[in-house]
Amino acid sequence: MSEAERGRILFAATGTDTDLWVDILGQTGREVTVEPDGAQDPSIHYAVVWRQPQSILNRLPNLKAIFSLGAGVDHVLNDPTLPDLPIVRVVSENLTQYMVEYVVWRVMDHHRRGGEYRAAQAVGEWKEFDQPVSSGVSVGFMGLGELGGSAARALAPLGFKLNGWSRRRAAVEGVTTFAGPDELQPFLSETDILVVLLPLTAGTHGIIDYRVLSSLRRDNLIGGAVLINAGRGGLQKEADILRALEDGSLKEASLDVFEVEPLPAASPLWTHPRVFITPHAAAPSDPREVVRPMLAQMDSYDRGEPLQHLVDRAAGY
Amino acid sequence: MSEAERGRILFAATGTDTDLWVDILGQTGREVTVEPDGAQDPSIHYAVVWRQPQSILNRLPNLKAIFSLGAGVDHVLNDPTLPDLPIVRVVSENLTQYMVEYVVWRVMDHHRRGGEYRAAQAVGEWKEFDQPVSSGVSVGFMGLGELGGSAARALAPLGFKLNGWSRRRAAVEGVTTFAGPDELQPFLSETDILVVLLPLTAGTHGIIDYRVLSSLRRDNLIGGAVLINAGRGGLQKEADILRALEDGSLKEASLDVFEVEPLPAASPLWTHPRVFITPHAAAPSDPREVVRPMLAQMDSYDRGEPLQHLVDRAAGY
Repeated sequence: MSEAERGRILFAATGTDTDLWVDILGQTGREVTVEPDGAQDPSIHYAVVWRQPQSILNRLPNLKAIFSLGAGVDHVLNDPTLPDLPIVRVVSENLTQYMVEYVVWRVMDHHRRGGEYRAAQAVGEWKEFDQPVSSGVSVGFMGLGELGGSAARALAPLGFKLNGWSRRRAAVEGVTTFAGPDELQPFLSETDILVVLLPLTAGTHGIIDYRVLSSLRRDNLIGGAVLINAGRGGLQKEADILRALEDGSLKEASLDVFEVEPLPAASPLWTHPRVFITPHAAAPSDPREVVRPMLAQMDSYDRGEPLQHLVDRAAGY
Repeated sequence: MSEAERGRILFAATGTDTDLWVDILGQTGREVTVEPDGAQDPSIHYAVVWRQPQSILNRLPNLKAIFSLGAGVDHVLNDPTLPDLPIVRVVSENLTQYMVEYVVWRVMDHHRRGGEYRAAQAVGEWKEFDQPVSSGVSVGFMGLGELGGSAARALAPLGFKLNGWSRRRAAVEGVTTFAGPDELQPFLSETDILVVLLPLTAGTHGIIDYRVLSSLRRDNLIGGAVLINAGRGGLQKEADILRALEDGSLKEASLDVFEVEPLPAASPLWTHPRVFITPHAAAPSDPREVVRPMLAQMDSYDRGEPLQHLVDRAAGY
């Protein structure tokens, strides 16, 4: 198909580096229109979106599919006028790799008592802390999709016991799986380090609450339960996290996402000595990595081949 | 062989929990004598030692072999009167596992810019740092024995480029190996994160000096070179580490071992903002793990079978 016959791309994203994305999208043979241009343009066949303005996509008469810039699509589905077209999520090796790194990094820092060693160093204290073997520590994943499954596989060779909970039962080698609301409590009661990589949907909003946090195994080898959230801030209730830290339900937390981002200066999370904060940086999307498979999918869909990595709109992810 | 026919064990170790070791050694059918008892005792067939007093072992007429409590044997060989008997090093799955964990932990914390994120959090700054992909970062091991090789294998699935240097050429899958003095500079110039797991010998004493540190790749994706020493404090020159940190040859260091342990209160390493200190805690020897294979080797040696994990005294490790 010649360049002239290929449909245009509409780029409609806020909160990201538009120039960089458009530059990379435009290097590859399709013309790119940046919202607010392109309203009702019949030559636009594909939309690349992230927190897009509402009521834009439903007015494009020849739109064939929607591509999300992020792995989570809650910010895309959040448009009640969204047309009934295929939505493709980002799946990039880099993004998965970054998330796996973040999870391994944070699990190891809690497991090896990084916070306690840093506190000892700060007061010049030469003090060894009991170190459990990893086979006595369980890491539990809420969410066992591409990201959770890959992170679990990366932790397996390090010797941890691995649990996983998801809405529908998943199968990941070496992971004891739990499914659905009935198995949430058994999952939590066998988990020392909780890693949250759920999609944000109506069913998961605020799921990380005091009830969940106080159900984690508290009397364990690493001296208390740990929360690691690299999913979405909307999954967690921050007041409940603080309450759980105060009453000993939770020993420590690593949070990459927050109810409001950037995290407001007034949040007590910033200064809590047992909370480690990163600014939604666990798994950055690199345009150079993400755009190539996106454009390849547009070309293959034009040839009549099916799209990969489709979002299940009914499930919300 | 009945209990009565088995030779006694002499336990001669300083700086460790003697009661705990003796308790565990004594649960297994051999009688244990604790130094200074047992001088010249002909019923002693095996010695279990660590920083033992000098001129003890050479006076035992029927001593058959010496077992070190630590993986490094510099503290055992440091006795000029040491008799010419087989010396067995500790090899324990737990010890290797702990060391692998420590290396993965520290590599990930430097790679993911933990120090910079903690500093940003301390001043309430929501700031993302450029995150290179692991395939663009090289981890170089000095020492490719049981510990270095295992740590390299654990890092391989995380995507890092792996280099290794050792006195004699080693072969570890996925690791580009360098050997001997002539290949030290090429090794260093291709290494971003230097992990030191060498034995301490006359040839390695003080090897981590300014010349080595200033030869690391400084202009790299993680913003500077990193030193991780989990081998022995005698390998490093701490004044040179501080100089390299000050002039930018070194970005950060994680040190588990020191020239003098415990690290003296006056050491500027304690308060250096880019140095992370642990108190020789990377790979604790757990008596419950280590004693069982030691006693099994004594029994099999009594039956005429060869000893495993022997120290090469000429090489010093």
